[in-house]
Amino acid sequence: MHKWWRSPGPALLAAALAIVVAALRPATEHAAAKGRPPLRFGPGGAFKVALFADLHYGEDAWTDWGPAQDAASDRVMAAVLDAENPDLVVYLGDLVTANNLPVPNASLYWDRAVSAARGRGVPWATVFGNHDDMAFEWPPEWFSPDGVPPLRWPPGPGSGCGFRGTPRTDLMAAETGANRLLSYSSSGPRELWPGVSNYVLQVLSRGRRARGDGHDHDPALLMYFLDSGGGSYTEVVSSAQVRWFHTQSQFLNPDGRIPELIFWHIPSTAYAKVAPKAKSEIRKPCVGSINEEEVAPQAAEWGMMDALAKRSSVKAVFVGHNHGLDWCCPYDGEEREQELWLCFARHTGYGGYGDWPRGARILEVTEEPFSAVSWIRMENGTRHSDVTLTS
Amino acid sequence: MHKWWRSPGPALLAAALAIVVAALRPATEHAAAKGRPPLRFGPGGAFKVALFADLHYGEDAWTDWGPAQDAASDRVMAAVLDAENPDLVVYLGDLVTANNLPVPNASLYWDRAVSAARGRGVPWATVFGNHDDMAFEWPPEWFSPDGVPPLRWPPGPGSGCGFRGTPRTDLMAAETGANRLLSYSSSGPRELWPGVSNYVLQVLSRGRRARGDGHDHDPALLMYFLDSGGGSYTEVVSSAQVRWFHTQSQFLNPDGRIPELIFWHIPSTAYAKVAPKAKSEIRKPCVGSINEEEVAPQAAEWGMMDALAKRSSVKAVFVGHNHGLDWCCPYDGEEREQELWLCFARHTGYGGYGDWPRGARILEVTEEPFSAVSWIRMENGTRHSDVTLTS
Repeated sequence: MHKWWRSPGPALLAAALAIVVAALRPATEHAAAKGRPPLRFGPGGAFKVALFADLHYGEDAWTDWGPAQDAASDRVMAAVLDAENPDLVVYLGDLVTANNLPVPNASLYWDRAVSAARGRGVPWATVFGNHDDMAFEWPPEWFSPDGVPPLRWPPGPGSGCGFRGTPRTDLMAAETGANRLLSYSSSGPRELWPGVSNYVLQVLSRGRRARGDGHDHDPALLMYFLDSGGGSYTEVVSSAQVRWFHTQSQFLNPDGRIPELIFWHIPSTAYAKVAPKAKSEIRKPCVGSINEEEVAPQAAEWGMMDALAKRSSVKAVFVGHNHGLDWCCPYDGEEREQELWLCFARHTGYGGYGDWPRGARILEVTEEPFSAVSWIRMENGTRHSDVTLTS
Repeated sequence: MHKWWRSPGPALLAAALAIVVAALRPATEHAAAKGRPPLRFGPGGAFKVALFADLHYGEDAWTDWGPAQDAASDRVMAAVLDAENPDLVVYLGDLVTANNLPVPNASLYWDRAVSAARGRGVPWATVFGNHDDMAFEWPPEWFSPDGVPPLRWPPGPGSGCGFRGTPRTDLMAAETGANRLLSYSSSGPRELWPGVSNYVLQVLSRGRRARGDGHDHDPALLMYFLDSGGGSYTEVVSSAQVRWFHTQSQFLNPDGRIPELIFWHIPSTAYAKVAPKAKSEIRKPCVGSINEEEVAPQAAEWGMMDALAKRSSVKAVFVGHNHGLDWCCPYDGEEREQELWLCFARHTGYGGYGDWPRGARILEVTEEPFSAVSWIRMENGTRHSDVTLTS
């Protein structure tokens, strides 16, 4: 999928042309409009996604173990990318722990998180979690006689007396700015603010050369990214986002022919409904390996789950947030031909709570016939929890 | 006290000279160094302060009653200023309810609060409360189908997708900027950040003409203003602030000859110790009229109360924060010649919780012999709760 990057000459030319084309037509949420080559199923007919969830970069920069755990998170992602060689990385929120960051701008830490994909030429997409734009929380002990420890990231000039977190729009602008052609992330429509990471990516059919039928511009998979809130505002998918999803899906996929997958950070309340009892064994039809805590769901449900359940083209939802859960369970709220799967990713970063071994959920989609399978790849190379999401 | 304002020619000349002098000597926290005429006891030997506490401007700008209650707060201050004609207004924190303000910069609301003093040519000083730099808290119902109500203060350009509160340094810079010669507020030393409103004002002796003894540059009262935190950080007076107070008081008043008064927003834990039982009658030695709630004290005590109690020159501490308390009680934690009084102000604004009638604590200090008396002036003109703080 990312082979274009290995021959930069034509790729850059194509990207430049695409930028010109983009300037001449109305803006859309499609990555193609941003000057990036389209995502596309590979010659083998598959498209593989690695989900990196809850990296939590930037904790305790004033200690040794803070930077050390960030280095450990680098190694987890490197191990997974070595083992899986995905076509796309989805960063599933909480890339940074902004409430632990006494810096005027968290983009450097955010950049370190996405550099795992960028450094290997792998396209990536991000959604916001509840920690990414949080304001710094002053440790109470800094007001005691011990005072403020020496900081490795001192406040720059003009940073004022507070560290208010970096607005989602600023983090996204830094990620997707000039010369960031591997980022497929996007700031969604302004009417969805304060939610920002609301956009759609399409993965095109594998193309003429392989199939010879002229369908190389047809999308064969739609991926919807949504901002589930938190940090600077309520942890919620809003009613406005539900309307946006309805409009987008009707426009891009009116007959539901194209399979659809959904990505956001905080589990919806539906996750709590399908969850196996916390700390109990995970039994079929659920599949997973850790079930160590209660689901910590969004604050309210304003209709997104109903909207998803009604579309049989929607196959699965992927979230992070709960570091102690890695299961997939079917959601049986509606009559559907196939299940709608609700999946947790796997805690990928050494930042954030929990000491469960780190890994990443992998998702492999096949174009014809459509199938979606998933498993978890651990830092130590092992693989487990294989599940078919299109049975 | 503010008569200099009525003859602007000499006053402006003096201010310009003071600026030149200030540029030639090390910066101090003294108002004189900022080009403002010194505060001074009046010809009658008295100096009167009005304390405006918890105005909470800017609530519910998207309704009718939000702006209406701000107008009501304007009227309370006008009534008190008409009745008392003070020499100084102290705004004792929570001038605005920033967590209710969907605006990129709260300085316009802050400015409305201080305009009560400015409009009458009365000098003023401010300290920060816990609501002044809070980030906007998105109402959960704005994510429902009802959506976001029409805002009377729409976000300006460049405001991003979040309203993160206006940093204390920005609020103070706007208040004390060019042509604000009536503001005696100051941003304290950077080493006290995130606390900002840490500074000392001195009130000079009533001067040569009245006394004929050449002591017209002698300070006869020191007023210490401290930032008791909250909002963007912990509600606390830090150990660093205690050290700063120690250094300042030793420098300005080494022999404790000059009486000292203290102003901050959030009651220290000592207030909870001396408080009459909530909702009980206020009995001597305490003096006040409402006692309707528990003291909501700072999160920790890092030594400021001990530092104050040790200095017999410190006569009283004044705080706001608890809208349902207006008493003064003596603090008997240390052996002292005179009591150290701990006083609440009176809820002045129509913003903020509580429907107790609005008013303002008045403080009148006499130079020779030194005395400090206080009472509460209500919006309706009545006066009550007279107390002598130097008996």
